[in-house]
Amino acid sequence: MGFVVEEQPYVVPTIHARHGDQLYIHGSVASRMLKSLRGGLRACVTVTLLDGLVLARSAFHHSMNYRSVIILGTAREVSGAEKPEALRRVVERVLAGRSEEVRGPNAKELRASTVLALPIEEASAKIRTGPPLDAEADYALPYWAGVLPLRMMAAEPVPDPRLSAGRPLSAALSGWRDLLAQRARRGD
Amino acid sequence: MGFVVEEQPYVVPTIHARHGDQLYIHGSVASRMLKSLRGGLRACVTVTLLDGLVLARSAFHHSMNYRSVIILGTAREVSGAEKPEALRRVVERVLAGRSEEVRGPNAKELRASTVLALPIEEASAKIRTGPPLDAEADYALPYWAGVLPLRMMAAEPVPDPRLSAGRPLSAALSGWRDLLAQRARRGD
Repeated sequence: MGFVVEEQPYVVPTIHARHGDQLYIHGSVASRMLKSLRGGLRACVTVTLLDGLVLARSAFHHSMNYRSVIILGTAREVSGAEKPEALRRVVERVLAGRSEEVRGPNAKELRASTVLALPIEEASAKIRTGPPLDAEADYALPYWAGVLPLRMMAAEPVPDPRLSAGRPLSAALSGWRDLLAQRARRGD
Repeated sequence: MGFVVEEQPYVVPTIHARHGDQLYIHGSVASRMLKSLRGGLRACVTVTLLDGLVLARSAFHHSMNYRSVIILGTAREVSGAEKPEALRRVVERVLAGRSEEVRGPNAKELRASTVLALPIEEASAKIRTGPPLDAEADYALPYWAGVLPLRMMAAEPVPDPRLSAGRPLSAALSGWRDLLAQRARRGD
């Protein structure tokens, strides 16, 4: 998420959930800025999934396969009954089903959490797929060309060392082997 | 890479290479802005590697394991002899050895390429590792807690459909099975 403080841009990594035509963003850093801006915070949220390295015959036509979206808008701070619901959606976005197998936030934790809402008013998406596109003359060059596919994969879940012996794996995690591959296909 | 145009922040995904105490950034979008800003472009470059989902016993203590760095500075446009060298470094950053097995950029391609240089003057890094940290009272709760490790993995290289039959795999790619795992360990 990008925002501006006194002409300096900042980009902070964070997580989000989409609900209808708005994004909920978990944003403790940005919230400090928001407090000085009653009218809201101009923001840019960019999400990029890297799908592969595109290796062309010329350096110039090297590229990446990716899916990317850029959303521009004015973020507001979420409060009231919307806030726990937004936090629940963020947890569910990270791992579907998880919000039902944890202790939900108490009043103190809610106060210590910040959620921003960004209406999706202006957005652009870019996708690149497929093989390299070389200049026609370059196809005769004797270099290997193609794509190295990349994918985010999950490894074996690591139980908390303080977990009681014999505690069954989180139900939300039970399909972890397929979890990330599914998400990549769905385009989340 | 984040930058600002008329008070609106923009965040664009791109690739970079580090050379000494500066970053080279492949930045066609930002370069258009730079042309109107002779003094340079205030920028923020943020790189984040996601290492895992941190699943705590309470929703509040859910987190991510990650390595992230934020660099603030003023970018300038690279020109002259520095430009092809910077582009070479970007190709090498993506795949070591690749710049020696492709056709390098010609004069027209160099003109059509944009490279920004950002001196590393102000930077902050954040790393989270390890198991969830729950509130002491919550360790008695009957919920599974732990980490789902995530890692970017490479899959089998996909040859360009127009590649001549029998062309050997790129030498730079010959270690592709280990490539991403090594990079993750090195902390690139």
